[in-house]
Amino acid sequence: MSEERKLAIICSKGSLDMAYPGLVLANAARMMGIEADLFFTFWGMDIITKDKVDHLKVVPVGNPAMHMPQFVGGLPGMTDMATTMMKKEIEKLDIPPVREFLEMVHDAGCGIWACKMAAEMMHLTREDLVDEVDGIIGAMEFLEKAEGAQLLFI
Amino acid sequence: MSEERKLAIICSKGSLDMAYPGLVLANAARMMGIEADLFFTFWGMDIITKDKVDHLKVVPVGNPAMHMPQFVGGLPGMTDMATTMMKKEIEKLDIPPVREFLEMVHDAGCGIWACKMAAEMMHLTREDLVDEVDGIIGAMEFLEKAEGAQLLFI
Amino acid sequence: MSEERKLAIICSKGSLDMAYPGLVLANAARMMGIEADLFFTFWGMDIITKDKVDHLKVVPVGNPAMHMPQFVGGLPGMTDMATTMMKKEIEKLDIPPVREFLEMVHDAGCGIWACKMAAEMMHLTREDLVDEVDGIIGAMEFLEKAEGAQLLFI
Repeated sequence: MSEERKLAIICSKGSLDMAYPGLVLANAARMMGIEADLFFTFWGMDIITKDKVDHLKVVPVGNPAMHMPQFVGGLPGMTDMATTMMKKEIEKLDIPPVREFLEMVHDAGCGIWACKMAAEMMHLTREDLVDEVDGIIGAMEFLEKAEGAQLLFI
Repeated sequence: MSEERKLAIICSKGSLDMAYPGLVLANAARMMGIEADLFFTFWGMDIITKDKVDHLKVVPVGNPAMHMPQFVGGLPGMTDMATTMMKKEIEKLDIPPVREFLEMVHDAGCGIWACKMAAEMMHLTREDLVDEVDGIIGAMEFLEKAEGAQLLFI
Repeated sequence: MSEERKLAIICSKGSLDMAYPGLVLANAARMMGIEADLFFTFWGMDIITKDKVDHLKVVPVGNPAMHMPQFVGGLPGMTDMATTMMKKEIEKLDIPPVREFLEMVHDAGCGIWACKMAAEMMHLTREDLVDEVDGIIGAMEFLEKAEGAQLLFI
């Protein structure tokens, strides 16, 4: 049996900045012929939720790398400003918005999975999720799929 | 020599929401006969600290997926409200509280390890940690245990 | 062909507390003869940016494990206070400051890589980065280097 290289990425964060690493790596993997699966859980469910995926945000509060004093970052409007800025930079680099990127990696053969426990906790059903989702699965099913894979938890 | 499948999870966050993914995955792994080890470090030490494990919180500030304006999320009481809400949802799904979950995965054969450097940095000794902790070990000892394992950093 | 053990760590956070886990693990790996690579992306770019590496901060806001009410943690001065405290604890344990630690792991043979997309997004060039950086590479090049490695995403 030939061992195929596999990458399985758990996406647990729901911010715009933490949505991209999983998509970028899954996309690169598929371009190299590496099997790829994205498994969304906890706050990461936002990335595959129809009415949230287009409204992901970057939050300056709590992130020292945004170089904004914490009491300024928490002011009304700051999150939207940071989000708009990041979206512009991303667009300049010809990187697609998250919804389009999901479609792209899915078309390239990347599996898109939602976590059953997170879906139940957040009262989300299949209809609430973007079409690309291949299924809602439990932790054991995820571990089965991820056998032999390199893992990442984002 | 047969290669046993292994999962080694580093838990570095001390929030309620980020305590669960490691426990859920370690539990699923053990149910499937996969070797599992949880290694607690940095803020994750709270999860295995006796007087903290029952008081882990979910913080809306800095987390856009909680859909609360940052200046609201930072108001007094908001963290407690979010924590209470998440605990209720978790209970509804019959998922045990963190302390009980630690006991459960440990009984199922999952190793529970504390990081030596983090313990020293936070002035914690063995007595401060829950009984399930199998030992306080350094990074090299962790890497030894994790040989051949799939790794996750939470 | 003998399979060498490898560790590839993606560093995506720019805070002082999240700079250390990657360095500590890479250092431990090298001491054990394990191949190690650090790949810096997104906010993690701060860790290898010349004018930022010495000014990484710990932010109490958004981190319940710092045990400070969120509305207090966001007050001016709190971030600096938490940062000073952590630096003292780190120094007491004879762990080097981040810049020195980068040099140390690099001297020990750990690869230090910057993410091309993040560099472009943040308008950083090779000159902005510390000398230890071995190159600015894309996601596909990273995946190539990481073949057969145990992966971590910090």
